[in-house]
Amino acid sequence: MDKQAKRSDCPVSIALDAVGDRWSLVVLRDILLNHKHRFRDLKASDEGIATNILSDRLKKLERHGILQRLEDPDDRRQFTYVATEKGLDLLPLILELGAWGARHGGQTTAPVGAADAYYSNRDHMIESARKAARGVS
Amino acid sequence: MDKQAKRSDCPVSIALDAVGDRWSLVVLRDILLNHKHRFRDLKASDEGIATNILSDRLKKLERHGILQRLEDPDDRRQFTYVATEKGLDLLPLILELGAWGARHGGQTTAPVGAADAYYSNRDHMIESARKAARGVS
Repeated sequence: MDKQAKRSDCPVSIALDAVGDRWSLVVLRDILLNHKHRFRDLKASDEGIATNILSDRLKKLERHGILQRLEDPDDRRQFTYVATEKGLDLLPLILELGAWGARHGGQTTAPVGAADAYYSNRDHMIESARKAARGVS
Repeated sequence: MDKQAKRSDCPVSIALDAVGDRWSLVVLRDILLNHKHRFRDLKASDEGIATNILSDRLKKLERHGILQRLEDPDDRRQFTYVATEKGLDLLPLILELGAWGARHGGQTTAPVGAADAYYSNRDHMIESARKAARGVS
């Protein structure tokens, strides 16, 4: 279904076939951590994603069963993008990226100590983020 | 230093600027999990990486301080590629990719139950893999 075929049966490589590009995990960060679900909100992120790239990545993530596109209850001409269970299971990956970026990326928007807090309490932080992504308080 | 500038100060985006492509984490998987350190061994992986792409990614990872290139003690005309501390800190990310691929990627080379085993004992599995990557038994 994708332009590029599966490269091997290694599970790491298979995961990268789905989300290993410069943009897919930025889009998923916004959906899973920043609770953005509309195209215009995803488009407005600091990284300045191009409209065609955002559109392409949303389609790809939907095709992989990572996102579902739903009719926006507030505006039936619009859609919202929500993570499936398969998509929610990418949350730890995004938190790991964030922790690594916070520790090694120089000046970032992460609070001081964020990486250490994550590394010392990984399972709990993942569970909290998962609940928040599901809209469970 | 890279062709593409930093997209934002978000730590997730910064991490993806360094390793968010189809190949960098495949190369790091081989170095960190499969203990391959020579160009020819990295080139021989199942994914069939092209020589110029492997060469480019090794340079990029070296430039980001993720890998170090050392003279091969067995053959001074060759080099070996070893992870720095910054590179070793990417190990959890690779394990998360593998667990997600094992759970959601259909038929893979992962043993049955590998994802569940990882998710239920994450910190321990990361620590074991880190020791193995350092060559500590």
